[in-house]
Amino acid sequence: MKHNPIITLFTDFGTSDPYAGIMKGVILSINPGARIIDLCHTVPPQDIRAGGLIFKSAYSFFPDKTIHLAVVDPGVGSRRAPILIETEKFFFIGPDNGLFSHILSKEKVIKIIALANTDYFLENISSTFHGRDIFAPAAAHLSKGLAPETFGPLLNNPVMIDFPEPLILSSGEIKGEIIHADHFGNLITNIDRNCLEKSDKPFCAEIKHLKIKKLLSCYADAENKEPFCLIGSTGQLEISVKNQSAQIQTGIKKGDKIRIFRD
Amino acid sequence: MKHNPIITLFTDFGTSDPYAGIMKGVILSINPGARIIDLCHTVPPQDIRAGGLIFKSAYSFFPDKTIHLAVVDPGVGSRRAPILIETEKFFFIGPDNGLFSHILSKEKVIKIIALANTDYFLENISSTFHGRDIFAPAAAHLSKGLAPETFGPLLNNPVMIDFPEPLILSSGEIKGEIIHADHFGNLITNIDRNCLEKSDKPFCAEIKHLKIKKLLSCYADAENKEPFCLIGSTGQLEISVKNQSAQIQTGIKKGDKIRIFRD
Amino acid sequence: MKHNPIITLFTDFGTSDPYAGIMKGVILSINPGARIIDLCHTVPPQDIRAGGLIFKSAYSFFPDKTIHLAVVDPGVGSRRAPILIETEKFFFIGPDNGLFSHILSKEKVIKIIALANTDYFLENISSTFHGRDIFAPAAAHLSKGLAPETFGPLLNNPVMIDFPEPLILSSGEIKGEIIHADHFGNLITNIDRNCLEKSDKPFCAEIKHLKIKKLLSCYADAENKEPFCLIGSTGQLEISVKNQSAQIQTGIKKGDKIRIFRD
Repeated sequence: MKHNPIITLFTDFGTSDPYAGIMKGVILSINPGARIIDLCHTVPPQDIRAGGLIFKSAYSFFPDKTIHLAVVDPGVGSRRAPILIETEKFFFIGPDNGLFSHILSKEKVIKIIALANTDYFLENISSTFHGRDIFAPAAAHLSKGLAPETFGPLLNNPVMIDFPEPLILSSGEIKGEIIHADHFGNLITNIDRNCLEKSDKPFCAEIKHLKIKKLLSCYADAENKEPFCLIGSTGQLEISVKNQSAQIQTGIKKGDKIRIFRD
Repeated sequence: MKHNPIITLFTDFGTSDPYAGIMKGVILSINPGARIIDLCHTVPPQDIRAGGLIFKSAYSFFPDKTIHLAVVDPGVGSRRAPILIETEKFFFIGPDNGLFSHILSKEKVIKIIALANTDYFLENISSTFHGRDIFAPAAAHLSKGLAPETFGPLLNNPVMIDFPEPLILSSGEIKGEIIHADHFGNLITNIDRNCLEKSDKPFCAEIKHLKIKKLLSCYADAENKEPFCLIGSTGQLEISVKNQSAQIQTGIKKGDKIRIFRD
Repeated sequence: MKHNPIITLFTDFGTSDPYAGIMKGVILSINPGARIIDLCHTVPPQDIRAGGLIFKSAYSFFPDKTIHLAVVDPGVGSRRAPILIETEKFFFIGPDNGLFSHILSKEKVIKIIALANTDYFLENISSTFHGRDIFAPAAAHLSKGLAPETFGPLLNNPVMIDFPEPLILSSGEIKGEIIHADHFGNLITNIDRNCLEKSDKPFCAEIKHLKIKKLLSCYADAENKEPFCLIGSTGQLEISVKNQSAQIQTGIKKGDKIRIFRD
């Protein structure tokens, strides 16, 4: 393995505490040449499902051999294992709680290791901050070229969690839901481009009190104040309002159901 | 051009999504040795004017040859061009929508290039995230030493937008406005040091219901709870309250008019 | 001194302004090879005591010779000195206002220097942003190998401030207080592990209207919605609620008194 690959940090630690900063200190103390990139620290607290969705949209843009350290870990200190996943392209380090379900089902997994070798933990292990005590040291040692199997035994049945999938009816109708509202207030659904590219008939999205008939290709084409649909940067259908927050303008929230049909 | 200059990221992407992190991944995938610095990610969403003002206060502190990648881009995916500006000191990459008006009028511009050469785009271009698909790749390739003209043809008439300028009356009176409230709640005006250094007569600032007679030189000299003026770190007149938020204490907001006179 | 040690940034500047980004630009303009790490930028504005507590929990995880640049500085521009502290392990740069009280009492201090040599300031010194004008340049020059005494004369009586210490009564009862609520809403007290490890009798914490009898070892062991105590990652007693914010659930705030006894 090439030395000094990039280590990304992806957590629900927020930015108001030095928790992410402390992980950087631990990594640099073990590998002073480590190259650390903040990927995102504002996953909704303890929300493994939201973390998995956000992580899925981001990890693949990094160079081969990047070490992705991801911590959304409400079970910290319990029996859930800390793991290292080696895939053909990347390494992933974090809790075995389903956060990596997408990776495990979509990337070519080479091996999964349970982080059990205490030689590569910090000296005193807390039961509340494995990001500092177990995950950061593992990422740092791995970035120095240690082989994954050094860190512990193989793990065979990683935890998998389900993510809400859209339902496509034989009529062509699609039933999905809002899975995320981003910083701009765009409402992102679980319906992706491939579900949609199937018809020339007029588009219609129905969600709560709203009917949206416009499927545009960029924000600038929209009328002011009028909600519209577009395929966003992750390839998923979004509801937006031009230069405003669709979330605030429409009152639609994560979890709300959306129905797409042609009419 | 020297290789591996610094690339700064300046956006309105916020910190709650991985959008800025994704741009870093794209840059590092093209130039694994890239040196990326977060300049600011919390420009008010889609506010080109606010972005221009904040950017103006910050970019000049970086080393020569820094590549400033700035994205506040409500017109993403429309006909607005993506551009690269080469000046005597810096490079600027972002949308041609007025965000760089200050740079274009104050820096020594060598050339402006329209980013049109798709060889330097990501493979699939979205119509909503040119930061990832066009601007980040351009910055990464430029940081590897590519010549600006490689990226596309010259562009002659970049978009310029106006920023509110203070009015100086023949009586010496100055009419300005609040252009920004910072994290501390300091209310920053568009009136700079040079407008003010013209009189020994008592200072008076009038804004909404308030008359402020104190022009101090540091926060610590102020009385508790009493609003005062000072020249802030950007060289502009500010209204502050000691150890508190002037914005919250006074109710004054961005856009409010201020009148300065001697009395 | 080894060249290019890490420079950490710890401030109350928030993330909505480019103030931290500007400091990075200043550092890189002086030492283009500087390695800058964001430790935390969201100390409550102007709160030296909170800053000191957060800083204390974080600085020690970094490699030897790290330069910690810490700015929580309501007295900027007044007579308070800018200082450089050299300890056996680290360097600290910031205002002489008590922010470093913990460091001064717990680390092996070699010398304290008043930053007085204007050769190492930026050219124009504002009275509101010494982070940019004095502290960042000092950190950058120090990281290039300059000796601490180059920056100014020794300073003998640095400002020390008191932090709330818990009171341990002869009965074994402990009187402490909440000193911080973190991003997850965990309520962190000033009572550390060592105060507590003294009894086998049942644990009881009393705080406002609440009696908490559970002292658990990890979050996952808790019942839903029921507040419990545990020793958090800083070694201090915390009040938590599983998968929720204890701060919001209980209404308990920073400054509230807590009483621990065995019963």
